[in-house]
Amino acid sequence: MDAEIIAVGSELLTPFRLDTNSLFLTEKLNSFGIEVRFKTVVGDDRPRLAEAFRTALQRAQLVILTGGLGPTEDDVNREVVAQVLDRPLREVEGIRRGIEERFARLGRVMSPNNLRQAMVPEGADWLENSSGTAPGLWIEHDGRIAILLPGPPRELEAIFNAACLPRLERIATAQRIRSRVYKVVGLPESELDQRIAPLYKPYDNPTTTILAVAGAIEVHLRARAASEEEAEALLAELGDKIEVVLGDHIFSTHGETLEQVVGMYLVMKQKTLATAESCTAGLLAERLTRVPGSSNYFLGGAVVYSNELKTKLVGVPAELIAENGAVSKPVAQALAGGIRQRTGASLGVGITGIAGPVGGTPEKPVGLVFVALADDHGTQVREFRFPGDRERIRFWATQAALEMVRRRVRT
Amino acid sequence: MDAEIIAVGSELLTPFRLDTNSLFLTEKLNSFGIEVRFKTVVGDDRPRLAEAFRTALQRAQLVILTGGLGPTEDDVNREVVAQVLDRPLREVEGIRRGIEERFARLGRVMSPNNLRQAMVPEGADWLENSSGTAPGLWIEHDGRIAILLPGPPRELEAIFNAACLPRLERIATAQRIRSRVYKVVGLPESELDQRIAPLYKPYDNPTTTILAVAGAIEVHLRARAASEEEAEALLAELGDKIEVVLGDHIFSTHGETLEQVVGMYLVMKQKTLATAESCTAGLLAERLTRVPGSSNYFLGGAVVYSNELKTKLVGVPAELIAENGAVSKPVAQALAGGIRQRTGASLGVGITGIAGPVGGTPEKPVGLVFVALADDHGTQVREFRFPGDRERIRFWATQAALEMVRRRVRT
Repeated sequence: MDAEIIAVGSELLTPFRLDTNSLFLTEKLNSFGIEVRFKTVVGDDRPRLAEAFRTALQRAQLVILTGGLGPTEDDVNREVVAQVLDRPLREVEGIRRGIEERFARLGRVMSPNNLRQAMVPEGADWLENSSGTAPGLWIEHDGRIAILLPGPPRELEAIFNAACLPRLERIATAQRIRSRVYKVVGLPESELDQRIAPLYKPYDNPTTTILAVAGAIEVHLRARAASEEEAEALLAELGDKIEVVLGDHIFSTHGETLEQVVGMYLVMKQKTLATAESCTAGLLAERLTRVPGSSNYFLGGAVVYSNELKTKLVGVPAELIAENGAVSKPVAQALAGGIRQRTGASLGVGITGIAGPVGGTPEKPVGLVFVALADDHGTQVREFRFPGDRERIRFWATQAALEMVRRRVRT
Repeated sequence: MDAEIIAVGSELLTPFRLDTNSLFLTEKLNSFGIEVRFKTVVGDDRPRLAEAFRTALQRAQLVILTGGLGPTEDDVNREVVAQVLDRPLREVEGIRRGIEERFARLGRVMSPNNLRQAMVPEGADWLENSSGTAPGLWIEHDGRIAILLPGPPRELEAIFNAACLPRLERIATAQRIRSRVYKVVGLPESELDQRIAPLYKPYDNPTTTILAVAGAIEVHLRARAASEEEAEALLAELGDKIEVVLGDHIFSTHGETLEQVVGMYLVMKQKTLATAESCTAGLLAERLTRVPGSSNYFLGGAVVYSNELKTKLVGVPAELIAENGAVSKPVAQALAGGIRQRTGASLGVGITGIAGPVGGTPEKPVGLVFVALADDHGTQVREFRFPGDRERIRFWATQAALEMVRRRVRT
């Protein structure tokens, strides 16, 4: 079964907004073996939407329209779909009552145009929206299925999960797709590919896709089979070989972020962490604390952008900075050791580097970063040269620091 | 003139990737009065791309295809376009030589399939690609224009700016579009709309769009006219009224971020800043230092996630925390004053709050945040209750802090 997703909304044709609902929908559809063949974006415009919907019905068995179900005149999806399928709109008593009750409950006055949302093309199933007024719609027509969903992601996802998944489950029995995602750090993409290409090349099921995503490389395996068990078996056959070859470069097999993985290890080992950041200026602390519950292992740290603060807040000797420069191995070590000592954490991380765009020299170019990790066995320090712009250099520096912590606390 | 953008690439139909080139292209096209009416995403698949391209030629005068120009068999755009337009592919000597020279210069061996990139539909103009091997193509056909651009954003943008903009300039003489973007903080969207709706409602040129974007509200005005001067005059007529009504809630009129604006004021006033962050855990420092040159006014600060560190690193008295709780006005004040005193900065910011998802109580719910700002006149502290999830609460807390600094240093 092939699908097309049509995202409706004039704001999605401006330079400021992208349709992101299609990513969620694609993932769900793929899990039933349904492939998305086309995605279309069209404005709140009756003739253009009608044209897009007609085209989609010709080339896909399943057409999902997102957005355009609000109460205002701008929201034309219900009417256009009714017109293209030649089914009159009828008011549905159950929807009307739900909308009226919702307004009563919130103590708000309902403007009459809200009742447009109770109008439904004849023969359509309506899908309850527990967090908004616009219900979704499910229409079967000439062997095709059209699904209309509201644009706000929270509403769309709730309706899709509650009402569409079970229906698709019944229909899309032909095949199942299962996938695995390995997240890898510490290997360049070309080297990773060299290592695993001989393994995955012989397989066209599972398919293998390698993606560079925010400081990590992801290896996606995707297997299709008649049942989930068979698909899992196919995944295991290739995946287990890949796991052996990549070994501990794989930091995550279930979608966890690097900071989540580091957090899990720190909790398991009952260790605490503190950070002293110069060029990354709080980004490492911020990433660590994106994880709820991080207060169990992350104590805090210092952002020491100026040399003076490196001395005042972390106790880096001023002479050490004067002798070696702020961006140097000894200063990274002193940052890691100093913050560990001042905070009493089991582990201290120090980062110093040149994020650019200016401030580089031939000896110390933009992208040079030192990361140090101190614990009661001593202090390890590594030198990196990251390519790219300021934002990328700072992100990669925190990625390298997290990876050093992961390797230290893993064993 | 109406345009359609077709993004080509099977990876753009997975749950992992979005087409973002269309945002750049839309902005440029809009500036010539060209409206994007449809966006389509299609995989590297000859029949489906042919179908999408044919459909686009029927409904738009300008069709831009992005991606699909690489050297491999997967890259089918050249061939599909040649086939749909019924023009044979011919090798272009100039492109061939450029590709060969590029490989020679990089000291790499050219595989023969790279020469596929020298094949061009008869009668097409080729657009030089200074940072890659795939040239762009410009094809005029039956009163329509098709533009083919490579997928990597850097290459696409360079070719478009160098070769397409001047050509569009000559063609799209009918109208010009100019726009203004006001970024606003400190006003809820509904209140902002109430204030300015009476001003913009009477105008359909400029059009007004209000967008909530990452902690700010943006008011976009867009005017069309026969010349840039006329469009600017239309913008000024409405925009100047809006500026008066919104006053100092507008923090940016030229696209600057809040941290950039704050940085400009700090430089102007020769003030320095230090931060002591609890719930935001470095995010404020990280945002401040996204701005190149921020070392001129940002000294650094402390990330004090644990109560103990609030005392150790910033000198907040342990009794104060015991009496009032870590999330309280007095502790926010002590954080701001303490970090200011310890760093010698002219301004100190303290943030403490409950980012969730757990840790809230009826008296101190998730979303409660105190932000304090200390300078030599004393310490100001404000209480906020932010809705939403952990990420949103943390971001808004830094937004509130930046806004407090902006108001303090602006005058």
